[in-house]
Amino acid sequence: MSFYEKYEHSLKENDSMLCVGLDSDVSRLPECLRHEKNPQIKFNREIIEATKDLVCSYKPNAAFYESAGIKGFEAWEDLKETAGSSKIPFIADVKRGDIGNTASHYAKALFEGGGFDAATVNPYMGWDTIEPFLKYEGKLLFLLALTSNSSASDFEYEGDLYKTVASKTEEWNRRCGNRLGLVVGATHPEEIVDIRKNAPGALFLIPGIGTQGGDTKKTVQNSMSLGGRILINVSRSVIFAGSGDDFAAQARKTAEKYRDMINNAIGR
Amino acid sequence: MSFYEKYEHSLKENDSMLCVGLDSDVSRLPECLRHEKNPQIKFNREIIEATKDLVCSYKPNAAFYESAGIKGFEAWEDLKETAGSSKIPFIADVKRGDIGNTASHYAKALFEGGGFDAATVNPYMGWDTIEPFLKYEGKLLFLLALTSNSSASDFEYEGDLYKTVASKTEEWNRRCGNRLGLVVGATHPEEIVDIRKNAPGALFLIPGIGTQGGDTKKTVQNSMSLGGRILINVSRSVIFAGSGDDFAAQARKTAEKYRDMINNAIGR
Repeated sequence: MSFYEKYEHSLKENDSMLCVGLDSDVSRLPECLRHEKNPQIKFNREIIEATKDLVCSYKPNAAFYESAGIKGFEAWEDLKETAGSSKIPFIADVKRGDIGNTASHYAKALFEGGGFDAATVNPYMGWDTIEPFLKYEGKLLFLLALTSNSSASDFEYEGDLYKTVASKTEEWNRRCGNRLGLVVGATHPEEIVDIRKNAPGALFLIPGIGTQGGDTKKTVQNSMSLGGRILINVSRSVIFAGSGDDFAAQARKTAEKYRDMINNAIGR
Repeated sequence: MSFYEKYEHSLKENDSMLCVGLDSDVSRLPECLRHEKNPQIKFNREIIEATKDLVCSYKPNAAFYESAGIKGFEAWEDLKETAGSSKIPFIADVKRGDIGNTASHYAKALFEGGGFDAATVNPYMGWDTIEPFLKYEGKLLFLLALTSNSSASDFEYEGDLYKTVASKTEEWNRRCGNRLGLVVGATHPEEIVDIRKNAPGALFLIPGIGTQGGDTKKTVQNSMSLGGRILINVSRSVIFAGSGDDFAAQARKTAEKYRDMINNAIGR
């Protein structure tokens, strides 16, 4: 199944636009998993099992696996395998970006033989750093546009950078069959209006709700203007909702709360 | 030893400003290494052994290890270990960039307990995505400014983006004790003049000589104006100079040629 087939399926089946970020920081895993051979793998599997009828997608961030050495590598591979056989799309949050020959190796690492359904990429270096990922059919790429962190203003507002990323994405989407989405932080609900105008056809992946404190209602409404489609990501607030033996049940409860909050924001 | 201690040592000892890029693409390794348990590890060790008196630094690019699965992971770890005990600085070419909590995990993966001496980072998301890497003393970060690929013009010229990255780097260097360098492609020898003006104190890491065809003489002279310091990177042209049993000797010969070409360009 392509990214969009999985996305449409989960959206409808689970009545959800929630993306759960699997930022499974080893140092924050529940005590009860310490004895596991690979606590990260066990944690992810339990979180997925507990939330798979509530989410529209999952988004593991590579940093939390790279920092965990060989076990982190194994846990990342386990997620990649899970993604391949799941009807829910998995977005590899890697923010990669490099010259063509190098980018093709990053793409191979993520997508060859199945793997993840989508990835985040950093657009700084331009089109030829993005194109190699598109050789893998059915995969989607999310380009960073306006991010949720406070230093976003250092460069993303330079000239019209984030708006230009959006309009280039729209232009490239016409060329590549709508294979590009955008990352847009919920901490900028006003700017989302302009980004949506520049890229009406792009799926938005929106972090910044939850721990980062973005305004859900405004964000959802503004990003869905012009018929736009979205995924709202919540990571730590969901997966670390509880730290006891009932961590998976707590994650489920919180995921349900966010799913409903998002749906309420559009009167769904 | 800090990055700069290693850098000063190699610069002087080897009379070299050459950085050799360890982009050890598994599909291009010499036939004679096929029987090795881990051909990438063996290849890197042989290349390093053959060139270690000719270079100022090494720069492995993570993509070529991520695309090689578990063996690639092991080869990356092997390089990290080699870096820790070497007097030559190793730059992890990873081009990472993510919000603070996430960036701290990328930094941990590269620097904790020794590891690499420096890393490349993508500046798109701003200061708070760079700062977590600086918690590891003595490490250097190279921010992408103007890259060597042809799509660099898609966004890097937006407003004054690459110039702003340079001037912000100079400003941040005053704050953090000159811990930031810049990546500047040799394919833009004219623009290098402006970048140097905006960031006179920053070490430039310059790819684009060799396979990518940049003008060595002009690049070296322009980037060293105002007393600026540089590293010139060559990857494939050196490490894949030969493909037979004598691949290491061929790499040595080519590394020597580039070292001398760079030194000649400044009449050194």
